[in-house]
Amino acid sequence: MARSFGAEGAYIAGSKDDALRGSIKRVVGSWGGSFWIEFINNPLRLVKEWKSSGGKVAHLTMYGMQIMCIKDEIASLDEDLLVVIGGEKVPFEYYSSADFNVAIGNQPHSEVAALAIFLDRVTCGRWENTHFKNAQIRIIPSEKGKNVEQLDLKKKPF
Amino acid sequence: MARSFGAEGAYIAGSKDDALRGSIKRVVGSWGGSFWIEFINNPLRLVKEWKSSGGKVAHLTMYGMQIMCIKDEIASLDEDLLVVIGGEKVPFEYYSSADFNVAIGNQPHSEVAALAIFLDRVTCGRWENTHFKNAQIRIIPSEKGKNVEQLDLKKKPF
Repeated sequence: MARSFGAEGAYIAGSKDDALRGSIKRVVGSWGGSFWIEFINNPLRLVKEWKSSGGKVAHLTMYGMQIMCIKDEIASLDEDLLVVIGGEKVPFEYYSSADFNVAIGNQPHSEVAALAIFLDRVTCGRWENTHFKNAQIRIIPSEKGKNVEQLDLKKKPF
Repeated sequence: MARSFGAEGAYIAGSKDDALRGSIKRVVGSWGGSFWIEFINNPLRLVKEWKSSGGKVAHLTMYGMQIMCIKDEIASLDEDLLVVIGGEKVPFEYYSSADFNVAIGNQPHSEVAALAIFLDRVTCGRWENTHFKNAQIRIIPSEKGKNVEQLDLKKKPF
């Protein structure tokens, strides 16, 4: 999902998941673009290293500042942006380390939904016009049914 | 998630899930508003009944028309709107029955993300200013940390 809304890659806290890695490889192979994932053991260390190398950090939490109030500031950043998404009990260090604690509505909701809206807002909806390079297949939008264009017949179809 | 982005309720295809029902009851009890769920066995029959009673149906699928092209038409509907979200293999009858087959980007992505963006677009982002009635608790947005206001001390806190 992060790929389709403009993220370049994802760090995932936890042990390696070859099934997930394979699934992303298949999506990128067929649908194009690039998207990396990296499994990490210490996400808080990543946040600190990211900041010390000059990057900015946004932490998505329903307790944070409303996205409508800070989206312009985030969208205008020149620095690389790391978006942190946790579960229900995120340690306080993430709140204090983040440059932005961002709420996508101050209501309970799914982290996936929050990330989609966040990426939509800070990219100003740019994903709606994205064309992924090196795609094998592409959808032609249709009112009813499915219309898929095969772009590279030398490669194996999906 | 659907609740926080403006949906009134959800039909869920499958057998009853008391844990889910309890979870939604707790969210509505604490955070206010109203949101119903109903478990159904035959979602295609629901689609047909919905249409025959005058409602409109939007089916979210990456093969559909791009949301940017049809959001205004959907947003201006007077009729009640049923949004259909399926898994990977949705039978063709849903495509043919739907008034709108809608793609949130013609790329693979999560259904939860698609629903969030769909509701955002067709409500013109109204969820950002929603206040839920009868809430026990409310978040005061903060730059760091958590600030929760207890609205009704007579009720049990969360």
